[in-house]
Amino acid sequence: MIFTAHVEILPHPDLLDPQGKAVLLGLSNLNITAIEDVRVGKHIVLNIEADSMQVADDLAKEACEKLLVNPIMERYSYEVTED
Amino acid sequence: MIFTAHVEILPHPDLLDPQGKAVLLGLSNLNITAIEDVRVGKHIVLNIEADSMQVADDLAKEACEKLLVNPIMERYSYEVTED
Repeated sequence: MIFTAHVEILPHPDLLDPQGKAVLLGLSNLNITAIEDVRVGKHIVLNIEADSMQVADDLAKEACEKLLVNPIMERYSYEVTED
Repeated sequence: MIFTAHVEILPHPDLLDPQGKAVLLGLSNLNITAIEDVRVGKHIVLNIEADSMQVADDLAKEACEKLLVNPIMERYSYEVTED
């Protein structure tokens, strides 16, 4: 079966996010001042071939922890759906 | 009122995604071969001060179209929630 995992990775709330600050400046240059804060992270879509939802979930978690996420600077969440 | 918009930006399905291919190679080096495809995009969180959900929604859309998204290479979706 094919599963899709959507992974959201964002900088830790306590850390400065320079990319978000750059976007905020860009918005203010466009006179969009109602947007008060921006944080920029990653959205990663994984297509997983697995026998069950549980196996797909474990694989997504392993990929996050071993490769995709830097736990010192980022936090993540993911959701697995069956195609 | 404060609203939060979560914007997901992904490379167009028809386009090659070199960052995704690099992640796929990294996963295969970790012997995670059940993940067959990876696409890497952006996840952007906007904090919006607005009088109504409709205004916040319009601001999020304007930010996407004027600054955040390159419509030639990317597609996007977003969701606005009230805090």
